[in-house]
Amino acid sequence: MSNQTKIAAIIGGGVIGGGWVARFLLAGWDVNLFDPDPEAPRKVGEVLDHARRSLPALYDVKLPDEGQLTFASSIKEAVSDASWIQESVPERLDIKHWTFAEIQAHCAQDALIGSSTSGFKPSELSSESENKSAIFVAHPFNPVYLVPVVELVGDADTLDRASDILDQILMKPIKVKKEIDAHVADRLLEAVWREALWLVNDDIATTEEIDDIIRYGFGLRWAQMGLFETYRIAGGEAGMAHFIEQFGPCLKWPWTKLMDVPDLTDELVDKIASQSDKQSGKHSIRALEQIRDNNLVAMMRALKTQNWGAGALLNYADKQLKSAIPSNAGEQLETVRRVVPVDWTDYNGHMNEGRYGQVFSDAADFIIEFIGADEDYIKSGLSYFTAETNTNFLQECHAGDEFYVQTGVLLAEGKKLKLLHEMKSADGETLATCTQFLLHVDLNTRKSCPPEAHILKNLEALRSNYAVADEQGEA
Amino acid sequence: MSNQTKIAAIIGGGVIGGGWVARFLLAGWDVNLFDPDPEAPRKVGEVLDHARRSLPALYDVKLPDEGQLTFASSIKEAVSDASWIQESVPERLDIKHWTFAEIQAHCAQDALIGSSTSGFKPSELSSESENKSAIFVAHPFNPVYLVPVVELVGDADTLDRASDILDQILMKPIKVKKEIDAHVADRLLEAVWREALWLVNDDIATTEEIDDIIRYGFGLRWAQMGLFETYRIAGGEAGMAHFIEQFGPCLKWPWTKLMDVPDLTDELVDKIASQSDKQSGKHSIRALEQIRDNNLVAMMRALKTQNWGAGALLNYADKQLKSAIPSNAGEQLETVRRVVPVDWTDYNGHMNEGRYGQVFSDAADFIIEFIGADEDYIKSGLSYFTAETNTNFLQECHAGDEFYVQTGVLLAEGKKLKLLHEMKSADGETLATCTQFLLHVDLNTRKSCPPEAHILKNLEALRSNYAVADEQGEA
Repeated sequence: MSNQTKIAAIIGGGVIGGGWVARFLLAGWDVNLFDPDPEAPRKVGEVLDHARRSLPALYDVKLPDEGQLTFASSIKEAVSDASWIQESVPERLDIKHWTFAEIQAHCAQDALIGSSTSGFKPSELSSESENKSAIFVAHPFNPVYLVPVVELVGDADTLDRASDILDQILMKPIKVKKEIDAHVADRLLEAVWREALWLVNDDIATTEEIDDIIRYGFGLRWAQMGLFETYRIAGGEAGMAHFIEQFGPCLKWPWTKLMDVPDLTDELVDKIASQSDKQSGKHSIRALEQIRDNNLVAMMRALKTQNWGAGALLNYADKQLKSAIPSNAGEQLETVRRVVPVDWTDYNGHMNEGRYGQVFSDAADFIIEFIGADEDYIKSGLSYFTAETNTNFLQECHAGDEFYVQTGVLLAEGKKLKLLHEMKSADGETLATCTQFLLHVDLNTRKSCPPEAHILKNLEALRSNYAVADEQGEA
Repeated sequence: MSNQTKIAAIIGGGVIGGGWVARFLLAGWDVNLFDPDPEAPRKVGEVLDHARRSLPALYDVKLPDEGQLTFASSIKEAVSDASWIQESVPERLDIKHWTFAEIQAHCAQDALIGSSTSGFKPSELSSESENKSAIFVAHPFNPVYLVPVVELVGDADTLDRASDILDQILMKPIKVKKEIDAHVADRLLEAVWREALWLVNDDIATTEEIDDIIRYGFGLRWAQMGLFETYRIAGGEAGMAHFIEQFGPCLKWPWTKLMDVPDLTDELVDKIASQSDKQSGKHSIRALEQIRDNNLVAMMRALKTQNWGAGALLNYADKQLKSAIPSNAGEQLETVRRVVPVDWTDYNGHMNEGRYGQVFSDAADFIIEFIGADEDYIKSGLSYFTAETNTNFLQECHAGDEFYVQTGVLLAEGKKLKLLHEMKSADGETLATCTQFLLHVDLNTRKSCPPEAHILKNLEALRSNYAVADEQGEA
């Protein structure tokens, strides 16, 4: 592949074509786009804006410099120097045939010609071509610039070459063994869609209820393990064959209107069980359960940061739980109490130092809300920003450990607030300490300014109740 | 509800029953478990271990104190003081009828009696009962202690009361409008399962390939938006009715062996479109796209922390991208270059202070690998831990901003390493600085110790090339 140009030609600049443009450009390839629609530059520009905002954020290192995007005035101009040509024109076979003829009249002999078709088989796409093996299915998923999988169907050697390039542009190619209408994913999606149409048609559930059952339910599982690995766990130590045999009779029950099902012959059961062993047999069921649980916790916590779906449910619960905590009236102000989640640990097996920063940030948030600078106050355009922290890491912390933070006030004067946080294990051992210097700011100017009168009054009360001496003499 | 006891009775302690035990206990309810299997305490104990490890980690505040678990010796003993009774016995109607009779002979008149059945309708479950409306379907999903959704089917008043309690124990009840075999989720799952069996049977794809197409593809979408909201976005501004009419003809194509589909009458199209408007109409398509993208980025980044599925793919890409970065040979050592991802920002609209800690931790990781303390070195039982940091926050940073970190050496002597990190915007403005004091440690004793000879040699070279003066005079 090393002699190939890093030039892709994208034919058709809709949502899918635009997604391909983004994938290649942001991986450092040059892209020639052909689309006769005068609106194409605007439409592709919008997809690119989305992609530039989100794709680089997936990585913890910088992506290569973006390639050059050229709007070609003809298919000929677009494809002549391209090593990958991607067809994303409308789903009509006559249009696709005409497009492939034009592409193959002008492209390099060894250029790869992928089709984004969700339905057609490669034999149908290439039926009028003299170089049939160059044409293959490369079916991506919306949004193409974020969802990694691409279904590949076609000539084996061509797919090997295509896989190499998809790896280079950071996607996940899956080769489908035999061509069928709609490949694999859309077969599964069609099945769900038909069943969902019946459920709406028969007034069993609304679109929203069906969506909620998916995204608060099995959708969470499927983002990290598929159908078979999930059921392998459900089967437990007895194994996959046992699970299928148990599940088997249900297939004949009249649960659905879609009823033509394969016979569960010994041969089919063995095939599934042995494929599942090959796929997942390296992990015990117990290990798979723990992997699944860690994945679910990490993903639901990620959705918390977006306050969406299962994450919004958790944020709501946090508020309810917080309001049930008895008010702080003792000598020490407890500002955080929680356990270390699985996504907070690093390669040393302990809580990463960055997460201590998050804990102390949460402790400060408690104080800020405690003195009355609540959601409404922040909406009014005033808040606190941290200007400096000094953190001492004394003991390690591990996933599942409960800990709490006690916070004292070193300084509370006008726009200045200086806190001393002590993070302690459930049995009172100090794990870390942090002095944190905060400034009250105007969110419009992003400059420091004095707090409103009622905050100042609360600050004074906070200081007189919870003042501590600056023993560290630091920060 | 306030007069109700916070006592649940769980009848049947398998994987599902055990999950219910965990949900109630960890929400602070007392639980009476009845299961005649002598292995039940062990089995439930295992589920509880999993739940205790993972469920509290979902929340950013501590859960209530755990309730008391009692192993009851009879159904009578288990249910007599319970306000929620959950049946999770095997899926045989005769066993379920016997169980409900025994429960209703001994429980309070107003006790809620949920069934975990995945297939039976409430009318079937309660056919032999004299208090039919108390019995309803409360169908949860594995793992019950993490996946929030519960399908409720039954008497409307009973379901209102059941919903309140499921809210209290932090789950997500969805009321199904009419009873049908297998409720909603298992209808959808059955459809996918049948289609997947055909794909394996016909050698189109293996179990692993099907699972990968799900978890690197539409599974990621479904963890945050369901079927209809996802397709609403695909339809674009033209709307849901347009999408269905476009998609409509495909339903008649011979893509699948499961072919009985509802007619797409105007009435059905209108029903779906108006339900979808009610569900998602508050967001524009553009807004939904951005929400979806943010969710996908956050979830895939969460899977990175677990090095699994789409996250493992990203970690692999990070390594490839890193190895393509030209070696650092200039005056300044560049230790991080990246953009701020969407899950790093907080309510002030900027990068949270905790994430600065993560950035400087990443910068230190670069240095540690740079001096030869790589994956193998850490596997051999030696590493560096951070003992103290001092951070000055100078400018704000927002999602999508590119930045880099330059790192100089303040001290490199034996087991001590002190670094000065300067974090700068793409155009060179200093955003934050951090002095970081690290100690070389033995991962077995978790105590500090001198590094191996080759590390010491590399440290010396690092110091002589990249020494900086301690201008802050701090930490």
